[in-house]
Amino acid sequence: MPTDAPERAQPTIKFLQQPTRSDWIDQALQNLDTILLDHSHCERKAAGVAVNMMFRYPSYTKLVRTLTAIAREELEHFELVNQWLDRRGIALAPLPAPPYGSKLSAQVRRDEPERLLDMLLVSGLIEARSHERLGLLAQHLPDPDLAKFYRSLMASEARHYGAYWVLATTYFEVDEVTVRLQELATVESELLATLHPHPRIHS
Amino acid sequence: MPTDAPERAQPTIKFLQQPTRSDWIDQALQNLDTILLDHSHCERKAAGVAVNMMFRYPSYTKLVRTLTAIAREELEHFELVNQWLDRRGIALAPLPAPPYGSKLSAQVRRDEPERLLDMLLVSGLIEARSHERLGLLAQHLPDPDLAKFYRSLMASEARHYGAYWVLATTYFEVDEVTVRLQELATVESELLATLHPHPRIHS
Ligand SMILES: [Fe+2]
Ligand SMILES: [Fe+2]
Ligand SMILES: [Fe+2]
Ligand SMILES: [Fe+2]
Repeated sequence: MPTDAPERAQPTIKFLQQPTRSDWIDQALQNLDTILLDHSHCERKAAGVAVNMMFRYPSYTKLVRTLTAIAREELEHFELVNQWLDRRGIALAPLPAPPYGSKLSAQVRRDEPERLLDMLLVSGLIEARSHERLGLLAQHLPDPDLAKFYRSLMASEARHYGAYWVLATTYFEVDEVTVRLQELATVESELLATLHPHPRIHS
Repeated sequence: MPTDAPERAQPTIKFLQQPTRSDWIDQALQNLDTILLDHSHCERKAAGVAVNMMFRYPSYTKLVRTLTAIAREELEHFELVNQWLDRRGIALAPLPAPPYGSKLSAQVRRDEPERLLDMLLVSGLIEARSHERLGLLAQHLPDPDLAKFYRSLMASEARHYGAYWVLATTYFEVDEVTVRLQELATVESELLATLHPHPRIHS
């Protein structure tokens, strides 16, 4: 088990203000079946968020095109994670979500165009955090095949947070995006400052 | 333009009680840009419906697996139709939906397990009708490349209505499925008995 301070163990990924605490990976490795099941839910939710945004902004061509590609990839990830669940005999089942997602969504301003900007940045932050945490799993998982699988997903999640950033700067001035990202990233890191008692990808 | 009575022009597809009226294809061919745009919306909605059902029944393994595959295909269709829109200079834009979808959804009973059965059968009927109508487009479109594209989509939509039938008979007795399908198919055909004034895939 890694016991390095997280600041040394993991460089801060662009977008994220604070790296993951080192106790998260210990919690994850000790509850791997739950983490895998939660990861399945995360991939489905990531697809759902992309599809919902496509419905909300049907004439934003670049957004629609980008989010269609992301949704397709998230559904593929969902399928692949579910195959891992199947292989390990873990049944699909609901799992109470950690507060992370709903507390981030609560930051989204209700009026347009701020709503669009915030939705893009919140999605980008979640992707960035997923990228970081799937990377930690890839690094620390004892099963080499599962570790390899997580390494392969990491690259997509990195592209996804990049894509959300590009969309944000397509529809908004870069200065506005940068300022708002900083605000949201502060909240995002605060939400993870204390380890959630239930093991989750975003606990 | 085809002027055959629809009964002779097109065999009734399993699931559908009445074939499409012959005036629909005339309306469609005369308003091809609108039909293409509406078709794009249909593919996105088909993906959305599949994703929503995956959220509603997260532990129904077979349903989740089948609908993940369908959602992925619908998103691919959505991408392909949007490429056709792009090629023809048609901008993505909202389009008021015909009453077909909402009137079919109104048939879905609110309590489980009836709700699940009805959702599966309504989706199956919409797929069957899409299959039939994309087939009519494939048959009558003057542009051979576009006709070929519609022929390629038809096969997927046929698999989709088959898949919804299989899911219905996985979770419900075949007799119950058959009776309810007949009721819903009657409504579905009645909804299309009069041509909707605005050209749509399901007008
Ligand atoms: Fe993913
Ligand atoms: Fe992602
Ligand atoms: Fe389709
Ligand atoms: Fe379909």
